[in-house]
Amino acid sequence: MADIARWAIRVEYDGSGFIGWQKQTEGLSVQSVIEAAAARIVGDRPVASVTAGRTDTGVHAAGIVVHLDFPADARLDIRQIRDGMSYFLKPHRVVVLEAAPVDLEWSARFSAVWRRYRYTIINRASRPVLQINQAWHVKRPIDIEIMQRGADHLLGRHDFTSFRATACQAKSPVRTLELLSIRREGELVIIDTQARSFLHHQVRNMVGSLALVGTKQWHHERMAEALAARDRRAAGPTAPPDGLCLMEVGYPEDPFRKE
Amino acid sequence: MADIARWAIRVEYDGSGFIGWQKQTEGLSVQSVIEAAAARIVGDRPVASVTAGRTDTGVHAAGIVVHLDFPADARLDIRQIRDGMSYFLKPHRVVVLEAAPVDLEWSARFSAVWRRYRYTIINRASRPVLQINQAWHVKRPIDIEIMQRGADHLLGRHDFTSFRATACQAKSPVRTLELLSIRREGELVIIDTQARSFLHHQVRNMVGSLALVGTKQWHHERMAEALAARDRRAAGPTAPPDGLCLMEVGYPEDPFRKE
Repeated sequence: MADIARWAIRVEYDGSGFIGWQKQTEGLSVQSVIEAAAARIVGDRPVASVTAGRTDTGVHAAGIVVHLDFPADARLDIRQIRDGMSYFLKPHRVVVLEAAPVDLEWSARFSAVWRRYRYTIINRASRPVLQINQAWHVKRPIDIEIMQRGADHLLGRHDFTSFRATACQAKSPVRTLELLSIRREGELVIIDTQARSFLHHQVRNMVGSLALVGTKQWHHERMAEALAARDRRAAGPTAPPDGLCLMEVGYPEDPFRKE
Repeated sequence: MADIARWAIRVEYDGSGFIGWQKQTEGLSVQSVIEAAAARIVGDRPVASVTAGRTDTGVHAAGIVVHLDFPADARLDIRQIRDGMSYFLKPHRVVVLEAAPVDLEWSARFSAVWRRYRYTIINRASRPVLQINQAWHVKRPIDIEIMQRGADHLLGRHDFTSFRATACQAKSPVRTLELLSIRREGELVIIDTQARSFLHHQVRNMVGSLALVGTKQWHHERMAEALAARDRRAAGPTAPPDGLCLMEVGYPEDPFRKE
């Protein structure tokens, strides 16, 4: 282990061409193309990666953080990693935005103290064109003030069993929602949310229920009832992955901070 | 002419798959797919179109206005046009957002009193991924305050010969620039501009020079000198089409206003 140099990278990707972050036996994963690009800059030696967020099929990232264990003898610098990996990542819609050396004790996943996601809805009659694959198309008019009242019921520390995928493997269903704010920009409804960590499908499940509140199919208090039920069947459907983007990951000290 | 029913439509398109608005002998134009979709909803009879903006190859539109002359006996309504045309426009990245009946004297082109364009720059080291084909990638850091000082020299009524394509066919090079404002949203630099009308390549030529000011390769006063020279060679290069989007077209009375 002493012969390893660990680096943190900040990555942007368009999830629509991928089966998600995680390597699987079939299909193209973000992890596999990242690890392949990392291997290319060290003479095709294997490089293992750990991510702050294992995004699902079709989910995007504007600022996900990953760490990579390179062979120490490669003596890499920031540009070799950022520009070299970005070069070998072509033509995939994945790019390295920043790179920084970190200690072997530092983990992109376990050192993270918050994750911030954005969910984008396009709220109009006609199908999306400029936001294709990057927004959920909801035709019924959304009232964002009512939607925000529904969202406010979820803030704070709760058992989120009702908003958790049945396949979720986390030990505890308790999470602390630090932010769930909704705003409109023309035809777009933008939902920003932040927590230390989220359960599997939690953001998409919250958004699926909130869309029912915003379109007045549910009263806002039904969000509180769904939460209290601790039963996935009490909440609404899972919103599609297209609208979801991992925006930023927070650490006690920002590894990319310029001195 | 009495047997014609004229309709205005508001259209969104991703210009990256098209040779531009205008029909040509070769290549896929936005006009040709719009006219084909219009023909489909009236039993394949020809429908002519006039646009408020003949965008170039790769330029986008979020709210361009077009008028269409349908046979009057088709007795179309708003939904047939908006949803019917949008259906037949698949799989092209073009969609009809709104439709409204207008008089035969009304023209999408000649009745327009202003056009508003947005130009988006992505200002960072790494290539764009989520904004691919929808932004110009400028690597050198941009100072938007200095860039705005350069932009201010262009506001008002001027001879814009220096910022006009040599192929431009407009009779007069004089235009009145009503708005040219620059702001930053994270890594994006967003330039909004409005005028009654623009010369050919005017926005892209203004942005090409402004990028030189923002990256401190040009002093901001050089914008005033370039303008005064009335010579295309005095201004900077033409910015690429990817970043340009026609946002909105203004009329004395909004044809799409809901009563």
